Amino acid sequence: MKIIRHFEEIEARSFSGDQVKGVAGRVAIGAADGAANFCMRLFTVEPGGHTPRHSHDWEHEILVHEGKGQVFRDGSWNDIERGSVIFIPPNEEHQLRNNDTTPFVFACLIPQGAPEL
Amino acid sequence: MKIIRHFEEIEARSFSGDQVKGVAGRVAIGAADGAANFCMRLFTVEPGGHTPRHSHDWEHEILVHEGKGQVFRDGSWNDIERGSVIFIPPNEEHQLRNNDTTPFVFACLIPQGAPEL
Repeated sequence: MKIIRHFEEIEARSFSGDQVKGVAGRVAIGAADGAANFCMRLFTVEPGGHTPRHSHDWEHEILVHEGKGQVFRDGSWNDIERGSVIFIPPNEEHQLRNNDTTPFVFACLIPQGAPEL
Repeated sequence: MKIIRHFEEIEARSFSGDQVKGVAGRVAIGAADGAANFCMRLFTVEPGGHTPRHSHDWEHEILVHEGKGQVFRDGSWNDIERGSVIFIPPNEEHQLRNNDTTPFVFACLIPQGAPEL
């Protein structure tokens, strides 16, 4: 199995509810591909959308792929943009939102064992 | 330590020699940041440049961040572009090159224990 794909070709799961709004998530490279140690997901957040504010006992390594947005950490919002990298250590409360007018896309990687999506 | 940075602000290491040409590498998130399980690097390949053709016993999870290029796998070159994701399993020979006219930038993640750069 030779994995080379465009992330937009991957089936997306849409998230919308009380805690999350306007988010589509895709597992770009995961355990089903033979990735034994960590998993790459891509998230597209529509303008006005946001991920849930939460914490968990695994880390995130994030790279902004497209657009602009903000990340909540330590009680405040921080501007991020295409090319920004963010490390969220385990158990830190965090949230991402799109406060801009174009789609905000970021890669978010997690260690093996955490839920892929 | 609250890590939010733009990858271009990170000091780059330049690679040039018999095996590699026109490549600048940056550790975006690594062990020094407290990342215990995997490491994100960003590589910028100039037009005409390439990484070494090699294999090793750890995997790569790659996301093309900017531009176009090619990845060598199983004896042939495959076109990749912004938004392409590639999984290189352990011990598979691979190489990336920029056969285009603009910079080719990709994120390449490796598990803990592999050399970061």
